[in-house]
Amino acid sequence: MAASKGACLVVGVGDGVGSAIAKAFAAQGYTVCMTRRPRHLDQLEALAAEIRSTGQDARAFGVDARQEADMIALVDRIEAEIGPLEIVVFNIGANVRFDLTETTAQVFSKVWEMACFAGFLAAREAARVMVPRGRGTILFTGASASLRGKEGFSAFASAKAGLRAVAQSAARELGPKGIHVANVVVDGAIDGVFIRSMRGEVGDLLEQDLILKPADIALNYVHLHNQPRSAWTHELDLRPWSESW
Amino acid sequence: MAASKGACLVVGVGDGVGSAIAKAFAAQGYTVCMTRRPRHLDQLEALAAEIRSTGQDARAFGVDARQEADMIALVDRIEAEIGPLEIVVFNIGANVRFDLTETTAQVFSKVWEMACFAGFLAAREAARVMVPRGRGTILFTGASASLRGKEGFSAFASAKAGLRAVAQSAARELGPKGIHVANVVVDGAIDGVFIRSMRGEVGDLLEQDLILKPADIALNYVHLHNQPRSAWTHELDLRPWSESW
Amino acid sequence: MAASKGACLVVGVGDGVGSAIAKAFAAQGYTVCMTRRPRHLDQLEALAAEIRSTGQDARAFGVDARQEADMIALVDRIEAEIGPLEIVVFNIGANVRFDLTETTAQVFSKVWEMACFAGFLAAREAARVMVPRGRGTILFTGASASLRGKEGFSAFASAKAGLRAVAQSAARELGPKGIHVANVVVDGAIDGVFIRSMRGEVGDLLEQDLILKPADIALNYVHLHNQPRSAWTHELDLRPWSESW
Amino acid sequence: MAASKGACLVVGVGDGVGSAIAKAFAAQGYTVCMTRRPRHLDQLEALAAEIRSTGQDARAFGVDARQEADMIALVDRIEAEIGPLEIVVFNIGANVRFDLTETTAQVFSKVWEMACFAGFLAAREAARVMVPRGRGTILFTGASASLRGKEGFSAFASAKAGLRAVAQSAARELGPKGIHVANVVVDGAIDGVFIRSMRGEVGDLLEQDLILKPADIALNYVHLHNQPRSAWTHELDLRPWSESW
Repeated sequence: MAASKGACLVVGVGDGVGSAIAKAFAAQGYTVCMTRRPRHLDQLEALAAEIRSTGQDARAFGVDARQEADMIALVDRIEAEIGPLEIVVFNIGANVRFDLTETTAQVFSKVWEMACFAGFLAAREAARVMVPRGRGTILFTGASASLRGKEGFSAFASAKAGLRAVAQSAARELGPKGIHVANVVVDGAIDGVFIRSMRGEVGDLLEQDLILKPADIALNYVHLHNQPRSAWTHELDLRPWSESW
Repeated sequence: MAASKGACLVVGVGDGVGSAIAKAFAAQGYTVCMTRRPRHLDQLEALAAEIRSTGQDARAFGVDARQEADMIALVDRIEAEIGPLEIVVFNIGANVRFDLTETTAQVFSKVWEMACFAGFLAAREAARVMVPRGRGTILFTGASASLRGKEGFSAFASAKAGLRAVAQSAARELGPKGIHVANVVVDGAIDGVFIRSMRGEVGDLLEQDLILKPADIALNYVHLHNQPRSAWTHELDLRPWSESW
Repeated sequence: MAASKGACLVVGVGDGVGSAIAKAFAAQGYTVCMTRRPRHLDQLEALAAEIRSTGQDARAFGVDARQEADMIALVDRIEAEIGPLEIVVFNIGANVRFDLTETTAQVFSKVWEMACFAGFLAAREAARVMVPRGRGTILFTGASASLRGKEGFSAFASAKAGLRAVAQSAARELGPKGIHVANVVVDGAIDGVFIRSMRGEVGDLLEQDLILKPADIALNYVHLHNQPRSAWTHELDLRPWSESW
Repeated sequence: MAASKGACLVVGVGDGVGSAIAKAFAAQGYTVCMTRRPRHLDQLEALAAEIRSTGQDARAFGVDARQEADMIALVDRIEAEIGPLEIVVFNIGANVRFDLTETTAQVFSKVWEMACFAGFLAAREAARVMVPRGRGTILFTGASASLRGKEGFSAFASAKAGLRAVAQSAARELGPKGIHVANVVVDGAIDGVFIRSMRGEVGDLLEQDLILKPADIALNYVHLHNQPRSAWTHELDLRPWSESW
């Protein structure tokens, strides 16, 4: 294995986009540190092993990204054991749909904790170690719901809009300190366990590129990280070619 | 006193905008129900008495608007004791400024609870009683920070963007059920205790209309409520004439 | 007839929104100067006569609003013969729908001339006489197409987006000079000759307020003009209560 | 020289961004067809020769991109003589600054013709030949002025907002037909003749990446063209790392 270019932390790695992003940055030579809730650590360990089997470097961490102390400890540990944190990707979603009057306080709060508060924590902890070095990349997986609310999306749109505001604030605050912050607005169904459970066979959709493919999404995260600093992107959108919007 | 046209609940009534909104709807013939945190109930009672002394109707409630059970109980009590809730105005702000790396999890959460979560609760409880009647108005006091994040505003912009998404989702969901939901984006300094503590004498600013006057803001809440349903506004902005933006 | 409060110029008065706006400002005590293309001057004269018959003041002008010299002459004449121009409303639309490949250069240009270029001319000429007095109101009738393009709307969306940018630029430039510039984003079908020709009987739509009523739209133009300068709105949207968006 | 992958037309190639985009697509194996106003054809011929000297393919065309017949003829000629048009980049700007009252009808119209109308023509002609093949990429160079107007930018912001609406309309209309349409919002000063004439020596700015470098901008055009169709971007922004916005 070649010497690592440093650490890339991907917060929220399930079977879809997070996994593709992790693989893409591992292929770029970074030691990829992936998190998922502790109860799914086994699956994450398997993914890390799969990545390592290709000669790249990956580590799995069972972490609740909503716990401030745990996220501080994770970043400290990565810096101490693995190397400088060069990239942090926040990739936790929480797509739920409820009528406003059916949205409990618990649902509204939990969606926000996962999709917004945890993103704030990840960005803040990234900034803590990146600012003194004057370099680093912080990327957020956003959603079109962040751009405007819709019927049934009070909780999800609110959390994602809150996350986007964190991304914008961080971009403006950290850009002049050398940190590239960008927000990727994903619009449309993504291939993965969830969509397969909803629609059954997705072979046709995949063959015709009618749903977002995680690996195609991930290309853009690498592109954003590799942009020279004379021309940084703060936000881009992604959707399948025939999606209406 | 003439018969009340029903109840108008204003959540978050301090000395400034909330007070002006309450007076404006009282002048329209509504029984104005005002909330403020319990420890400031004395001041709110004084405001209610002042409004009543003009022959209009007002009630003061010491309520923590972030408590789900308390907000449910408040709306039930208004409906039972005062009359149908025709208007709900959510007016709690939480304007703080911290660098991202200086923003504690506690600050981030508390700003969200006050400026976003409490707004969701107020809207949901309003919808609960308004939807069966097919009428009602829900108004939010927003901020320009909700439109885009800025350096130092990770917490505030995030909460306000989250609130705006609640307003948009509610507008699209409740409009076809006869409920008018609108968001007022206030941009600029507002006359009140806070600005007076910051800038000292504000006489010149007021005389030249260089800061927002609460009574001038409140006119727009009444206008929104009175719009015929063939032409409803969902969002408008407000700023002083010479404000740059 | 009471003394006029000055002149209100409404550019683009057909049978619908322009007419309602003219009537609304006439009722506020302004001498309403209405323009329409010369070939429809007869109908406009009839409208002016109708307004005058109620004891208010109105004048009809057959003007091509795309002709710079004609618009300069019109504003000069109003200032000389009628009184200071206090309000200018630009109300020309040009809603057409063509696939991109079917949009001729002539169509694209003509839509822009009517819906954007003429609006620039009206705003510039308004500014010319208002800025030295440090007061005045300039209002634009916008469309939701100005906010984002759509299939079939290359020409219309482009012109309306261009007009909105004129409104924003003018608002930022003229606000600190005492001129209130605002943009009204109308979203949805409006009662009038056009919709009646498309849908036939609109009685049901009107009765249930499912289409925008010109008089209900016009209320907002008057409200914008009457806003105290401590709290000016730059943009508001209007749509029927049950419209999805 | 290897066989060309087809033609890439770049409309508006001066010394800066257009030139960099042309070089980038030539390096990807496309025959780059570059346009500039006829009176600057000599310089464009020199650029084409420079590109060809590296073993890539380039052609220079002196064309007024505002002339419908000329643009139709150009596209027909490229298709007949060079190969299928795979990429069209519209890159004409017209950044001027005038107070609203100082903006002549001629200036307003000319800025629009160059920055908006010519873009519509280029997109329409691209669509004409791409739609039957079900593939192709159309890219626009936009500006942050397209997002909101500002003091002094009535003409420029209006034209750029109009162009952005063309891009959005075309994206929604042509996407489902297999054509990828994207808009690049460039925000900030760009290295080139203009900035050098304004600021004199720009070595420090370049060394610290404080102004946009054309080659760094061009990377993103290639990235957009190469995106797999399961995940297309419609809009991204570009600005230097320390630019405030």
